[in-house]
Amino acid sequence: MARIVMKFGGTSMAGIERIRNVAERVKRETERGNEVAVVVSAMAGDTDRLVNFCREASSLYDPREYDVVVATGEQVTSGLLAIALQSLGVKARSWLGWQLPIRTNDAHASARIQDIDTEALIAAMAAGEVAVIPGFQGMAESGRVTTLGRGGSDTSAVAIAAAVKADRCDIYTDVDGVYTTDPRIVPRARKLAKVTYEEMLELASVGAKVLQTRSVGLAMKEGVRVQVLSSFDAPTDDETPGTMIVGDNEIEESEMERQRITGIALDKNEAKITLTEVPDRPGAVASIFAPLADANINVDVIVQNIAHDTGSTDVTFTVPGAELARAIDVLEKAQGSIGYGNLRHDTKICKVSVVGVGMRSHAGVASTMFTALAGRGINIQAIATSEIKVSVLIEEDYAELAVRVLHTAYGLDAPEALEA
Amino acid sequence: MARIVMKFGGTSMAGIERIRNVAERVKRETERGNEVAVVVSAMAGDTDRLVNFCREASSLYDPREYDVVVATGEQVTSGLLAIALQSLGVKARSWLGWQLPIRTNDAHASARIQDIDTEALIAAMAAGEVAVIPGFQGMAESGRVTTLGRGGSDTSAVAIAAAVKADRCDIYTDVDGVYTTDPRIVPRARKLAKVTYEEMLELASVGAKVLQTRSVGLAMKEGVRVQVLSSFDAPTDDETPGTMIVGDNEIEESEMERQRITGIALDKNEAKITLTEVPDRPGAVASIFAPLADANINVDVIVQNIAHDTGSTDVTFTVPGAELARAIDVLEKAQGSIGYGNLRHDTKICKVSVVGVGMRSHAGVASTMFTALAGRGINIQAIATSEIKVSVLIEEDYAELAVRVLHTAYGLDAPEALEA
Repeated sequence: MARIVMKFGGTSMAGIERIRNVAERVKRETERGNEVAVVVSAMAGDTDRLVNFCREASSLYDPREYDVVVATGEQVTSGLLAIALQSLGVKARSWLGWQLPIRTNDAHASARIQDIDTEALIAAMAAGEVAVIPGFQGMAESGRVTTLGRGGSDTSAVAIAAAVKADRCDIYTDVDGVYTTDPRIVPRARKLAKVTYEEMLELASVGAKVLQTRSVGLAMKEGVRVQVLSSFDAPTDDETPGTMIVGDNEIEESEMERQRITGIALDKNEAKITLTEVPDRPGAVASIFAPLADANINVDVIVQNIAHDTGSTDVTFTVPGAELARAIDVLEKAQGSIGYGNLRHDTKICKVSVVGVGMRSHAGVASTMFTALAGRGINIQAIATSEIKVSVLIEEDYAELAVRVLHTAYGLDAPEALEA
Repeated sequence: MARIVMKFGGTSMAGIERIRNVAERVKRETERGNEVAVVVSAMAGDTDRLVNFCREASSLYDPREYDVVVATGEQVTSGLLAIALQSLGVKARSWLGWQLPIRTNDAHASARIQDIDTEALIAAMAAGEVAVIPGFQGMAESGRVTTLGRGGSDTSAVAIAAAVKADRCDIYTDVDGVYTTDPRIVPRARKLAKVTYEEMLELASVGAKVLQTRSVGLAMKEGVRVQVLSSFDAPTDDETPGTMIVGDNEIEESEMERQRITGIALDKNEAKITLTEVPDRPGAVASIFAPLADANINVDVIVQNIAHDTGSTDVTFTVPGAELARAIDVLEKAQGSIGYGNLRHDTKICKVSVVGVGMRSHAGVASTMFTALAGRGINIQAIATSEIKVSVLIEEDYAELAVRVLHTAYGLDAPEALEA
């Protein structure tokens, strides 16, 4: 007997027919004698609908009220899955974030889980009842509803798996594993049997859309065995039909050597902000990012151009597109203390990254990238690197072309097109 | 300075533009120096959407999970109205049912409010913050989400008005008051300046669609001054532009005498059940209704035909259409103990009622009704009477015709058609 946390994404929960399929899959897991908790996302499109309501109501909405609104999507699907399970004769009940509770900090709209009370949960599972838990939501110490930020249901699932000491956390999604890149863009992308937490972290953070970054970081920290698999494939007797996310130690040395690049990732949800004529003095850059950090706005790629003769410089960076209005508001209020000239922003950009644990021991990865992109006339607006990735910002219209070019350039294409 | 509870129905909350209008109206009330709590319904159509999800998931859904699902509609609108108020510069926050809490019994899907904790609410209002409260929802002692049954937001509003000792409870809806009948059916219906709690109770219970029955009963019991008014009319300086619902003592004797019939009501949401060959012995009828009561299913019109020569009888009664599947399930399980022959059901029926406090002192009301209906060839399937109303069940197709015929028969038509 094992204890399994299953997590189903928005496309798996989109409509009653699919929720019934999810219930069948959960039932099969219980019939193996396993204790099961299920974490669910909102129906595909529902969170967008709710977020848009908030934006329409006010571009500078109160994140505490935003959380009240958007947390409802998962509340709906958790109730419906409990009903669907019961109709299959499986004992089940929903546990809302505030009922367990799942305690978070008070960073509304991007809260972090601090602690999960598992007593009731473990007792229910031990009594043979499937616990259905809405992902993405929790409760702050103030007693108010919080949400974890977009894609937060993965983090909920991993956090619950860690808290109940689950044997495995299975993340069911609309793809059957982690690919070298998005197969919707590159049909010849290959499925990976294993990736390391570290690679997955980069793939997720740069928009591979399979798992949320924080969930992978949390899995790495807590040592949760995570599997990514499809909720649409026919169930198999194979214990691990998807992609396992594992520690470095589970990847063989020979594999490390062979595999220079694991995958290519694309992120279209960033927006670029440029502040011109920032004073070229110590502390000037800090004065830009401190107020953004205080507002819980994530900043990614940062580029500072060389100083002008005038003693000032331009600073360019990216923020999540959803945070752009808030970021601009924060920066305009701080214009006096930062002392910049103009604020320019651009949402028509994207970030393309090549990722691989092999990269740290190889030279030439970046130059292959720049050569390949230049060969198609794709202009690079900014570059950022880490030990296991190289990212570039380019014009959004070139996104898919760039991914295809790089997938081929690094020899990642499958020998022939996958069968449909 | 007064303390006002304002309640807005689903059509008033249907979409951000309308929610913004509601916010403007609430702002105006705060600018008069009043303390304000607002109770909101879900967006029109949203509760139906959620109820349908539950029914699709299982016709015999767990009402505890149903409540988890359907309570989200009001959660969404309460967060959105708080955001809209803030964007107008009005301090506001949402208070969910479990946050106050609004304590109810555990009759899920048709729970009753037992107690409302008002300390935080009164403190917030005293500090000049508008409290936005989702209607229709509460929390059982088990800590699970409950809902009050369809239209329950009116009851929430009146219960909150009673708990905070509000000076008035203004129910904003899509009509500008209580009419002699539904003006969508009879354009020459007249708006009533005053109705008694008792009349309103009958008008609401028979489907006048303006206020939920329980809310009126509660208002009568708690002495809450309720006003029904339109959220779409231009705001006026008139303190009470709608219909005031008042005690008998506020209706003058001369008015009572003059006004035989106050209004005609129509209810299409009932379903008829007939049990054939019920044993004609003491306790037989009780054995039918006891299990329905245990299942919290409301039974309305009950007709027992004269006994057959065989020593058995047919029993006909109505239940809310939404409860039909559950009622049938309960009755089929109890077939052995009741000992009936067949169960027949019919949803193509409606109930038409004439209501008036004057009725108790007048004869001939019922005979006018039967004559008028017979004159149009409308067959009466069952009759029920109370001190201030006479109701008949008829085939649903004749619903509007019957209302129009009776409105004219009792002299309720306005002198000429209302202007658009």
